[in-house]
Amino acid sequence: MRNLKLTLGYDGHEFFGWAIQPDRPTVQGALVETLRKITGEKVRLYGSGRTDAGVHALGQVAHFKTRSPIPPENLQRALNALLPASIRVFGVEEVPLDFHARWHARAKTYRYRILRASICSPFLRHYVYHYPYPLDEAAMVRAAPLFEGEHDFSTFGSWDPEETDHNRVRTVYSSRFEPHGSRSVGQTFLSAASESEEEIVYIVRGRSFLRYMVRKLVGTLLDIGKGRLKPEDIPVLFEARDRARAGPTVPPEGLYLVEVDYRQALAQPRFSAQADADSV
Amino acid sequence: MRNLKLTLGYDGHEFFGWAIQPDRPTVQGALVETLRKITGEKVRLYGSGRTDAGVHALGQVAHFKTRSPIPPENLQRALNALLPASIRVFGVEEVPLDFHARWHARAKTYRYRILRASICSPFLRHYVYHYPYPLDEAAMVRAAPLFEGEHDFSTFGSWDPEETDHNRVRTVYSSRFEPHGSRSVGQTFLSAASESEEEIVYIVRGRSFLRYMVRKLVGTLLDIGKGRLKPEDIPVLFEARDRARAGPTVPPEGLYLVEVDYRQALAQPRFSAQADADSV
Repeated sequence: MRNLKLTLGYDGHEFFGWAIQPDRPTVQGALVETLRKITGEKVRLYGSGRTDAGVHALGQVAHFKTRSPIPPENLQRALNALLPASIRVFGVEEVPLDFHARWHARAKTYRYRILRASICSPFLRHYVYHYPYPLDEAAMVRAAPLFEGEHDFSTFGSWDPEETDHNRVRTVYSSRFEPHGSRSVGQTFLSAASESEEEIVYIVRGRSFLRYMVRKLVGTLLDIGKGRLKPEDIPVLFEARDRARAGPTVPPEGLYLVEVDYRQALAQPRFSAQADADSV
Repeated sequence: MRNLKLTLGYDGHEFFGWAIQPDRPTVQGALVETLRKITGEKVRLYGSGRTDAGVHALGQVAHFKTRSPIPPENLQRALNALLPASIRVFGVEEVPLDFHARWHARAKTYRYRILRASICSPFLRHYVYHYPYPLDEAAMVRAAPLFEGEHDFSTFGSWDPEETDHNRVRTVYSSRFEPHGSRSVGQTFLSAASESEEEIVYIVRGRSFLRYMVRKLVGTLLDIGKGRLKPEDIPVLFEARDRARAGPTVPPEGLYLVEVDYRQALAQPRFSAQADADSV
């Protein structure tokens, strides 16, 4: 028996999310079906966490066990040959048998792209949240780090009825807007040239996240940008533990799972309560 | 009567090309239909030239005449509200009654994106030509300017049976690969980070082009990169006037019409033979 770790990117626009569902295209479903063709086995594939319909990934991680002797590089080639082009396998590696993509994840990083241009490029329509209206961006930048640290995030997460762990305390390592200077020059290619500077990007890195949590943090930051909330309201919102008080859940098309970090994972205990309810 | 000029971008992946066809989504068809809703008129819409199925645009230009008194900025807003998001109107301006998007075009600029990365990002699959195999890029860079100047491009263009002008002499002002340094950092967003430097971009600017000409020039440059042709074969290919001798027509997904230039157009004579057969 071998344990194989996959690093994946996918265009969330093409799927009803990560988690397998009957009769609907899902990322997990496409992978399991393609692995069946390659290995002849019906594998159990575990992702680092679910992503919801429309959410993209550049660095999702999953693992599965197999009796197939196929070398990792051959498996990667076969997967990329047989999977739809909307899913790509960026890496395959053999890992110790006890490695678990979900329980051993030490941190996840998400990006959320907000296009400020008055017109959304036809090439970006599935890949950013287009919000062309006035925003106090300085207030949003001031507020973002207030989500950092260990907090009860009940106000900022939906509850997944399938989860049995009711602990809503999560640790956010970093919650920031990307400095404007680091913005992608290459946007000129995909949008009208003048729009290249008109995107703001929120980056959040945490131990794990409640369902919809990243999109609710962004919705709350947007409410601050609109003047409906102030940065100093955030401690009050944490205190309230009331989902009705947070900003709205912003659309999935701006959200990217960019990295799952397993550093020192194998030296850590196998079970981690915080990773339990992870679904974004 | 007023004459209105539109500047347009579109995701060619969504359309069977520019030119209107019954029962198929086309860019011209979507525009005419939307203009009918807004103005109540069945307008005649003239593009600077056709783009084929799958070819993208960031700066296509079209014009139409109307009796509607709608101000240009209102028309732009209405078009962007009613058109599919895969077509965006970047500008609307009122122009002299004799302005013609096709006859008055002085130059057109196209880009062709070739992704060299071993894996094509799921976000780029409709927007680049993925060619991960070995290429002598230096030979391609040396060869590209050999297409510049006034030449009979019979070898490098398909013939459009609808065209009555049999002149295949065209003037190419510039035919170059974009220097690597100018490449888009922002690709890191849409592809795996390590692939951001793995794209080469060909830019060609000319008075007008034969049908498929840009894609055949790129196919010929790729044949040079593969060693099937040498840069010094290009004068021989011009001389041959034989379409079978050129490289293949590369796929449309890498091609973008980025600019149509009308500088001093209105001071020029109305009819231009070179613009006659323009379709790419």
